[in-house]
Amino acid sequence: MQIEIVKNVLAENENLAAEVRKRLRRKRQSLVNFMSAPGSGKTLLLEKLIPCLGALGLRVGVIEGDITTTNDAARIQPLGVPVAQINTEPFGGDCHLAANVILGALDLLEPHPLDAVLIENVGNLVCPAEFDTGADLNVVLWSVTEGEDKPLKYPLMFRTCRLLVVTKLDLLQPAGADLELMKANVRRIHPDIEIAVTSARTGEGLDALAARLADHHKKTVF
Amino acid sequence: MQIEIVKNVLAENENLAAEVRKRLRRKRQSLVNFMSAPGSGKTLLLEKLIPCLGALGLRVGVIEGDITTTNDAARIQPLGVPVAQINTEPFGGDCHLAANVILGALDLLEPHPLDAVLIENVGNLVCPAEFDTGADLNVVLWSVTEGEDKPLKYPLMFRTCRLLVVTKLDLLQPAGADLELMKANVRRIHPDIEIAVTSARTGEGLDALAARLADHHKKTVF
Repeated sequence: MQIEIVKNVLAENENLAAEVRKRLRRKRQSLVNFMSAPGSGKTLLLEKLIPCLGALGLRVGVIEGDITTTNDAARIQPLGVPVAQINTEPFGGDCHLAANVILGALDLLEPHPLDAVLIENVGNLVCPAEFDTGADLNVVLWSVTEGEDKPLKYPLMFRTCRLLVVTKLDLLQPAGADLELMKANVRRIHPDIEIAVTSARTGEGLDALAARLADHHKKTVF
Repeated sequence: MQIEIVKNVLAENENLAAEVRKRLRRKRQSLVNFMSAPGSGKTLLLEKLIPCLGALGLRVGVIEGDITTTNDAARIQPLGVPVAQINTEPFGGDCHLAANVILGALDLLEPHPLDAVLIENVGNLVCPAEFDTGADLNVVLWSVTEGEDKPLKYPLMFRTCRLLVVTKLDLLQPAGADLELMKANVRRIHPDIEIAVTSARTGEGLDALAARLADHHKKTVF
């Protein structure tokens, strides 16, 4: 019976994700879903990436997902882009964003003319990968301080994402991390995953990542 | 109906957690549950802490929880302590350990005369806090590279744990982290939480943490 209900929840989510996609196509918008463990640097990456996307002519909106607090939305707002904050605490403290809350967030962003909407999912390497948000590109962030074994231990997340953004490259040496081993391990799980290596602090890799997302936008919308 | 089932799952888990506790009291064992985000350094902390606990005369066993792989158990085994590896993948890839799998793991450890059993939970700052494992001490690890806001954004985890272990202190300066702000933020959520500050790499704080756990063992068992 539990399994039946989980199936129903996922099937219902698929329907709502399809609705998200229809709406995006109608409005000629792309939707990118950023996922990672807590503290991998999702918010800081968005803070630094959004101006790069703006410089490429993309009008960007953001959906911030957290169990509680509006801290992340408060960090994005000064960039002058519209933000919809979702708190899952009133809904049982959900550990992921599902398509129904994305639809609600798109309603909130409706008044703004946007090209690309970026989702910052709840910090969690497990559950968000199980719920289709309706995004046309799933991205996983993985910081060099988290250990080289993460794709092996959380394979669904790394299989679900077409693009891996390695973060905190400036900490590679202090953390004693092995970037080549990270790349080799993620390719054991997802051989043709694309990899962008970045440091939000030094700016390394951000222009290239913005160009990659702008390219994705064009291919999705036109 | 979904809510009803979730309630039943949690109630059933409470019953099994009570069974875990009865069994521990009968065997005069303590059970410590280590939780954190992926990559906060749980396995490395255990690798370094177990010899310190051994030096204090404690016979330690370990329960390793992962969705998949036996990598962590393979890292613990060379220490010469018994390890029970739980993989949740066959059970739907559960993002946490519940009391039923702890009972099974205690069965596997049964042949060994043990004082303290240490659980390394699945890396996740959300769901493991919702499931009582039967442990008599819940511990959360939080690395200095994860940002100072984590307790504010994942309050249930930091409220559930009586002890916070700050990890990767050797990366404090490279990461530009603010230890006092970390402490202040966790105390906003859990004012009297105990805090141990450690670096598994340099060994800082490990003897004090081992002494704290040995003290916990004595108080729990005698």
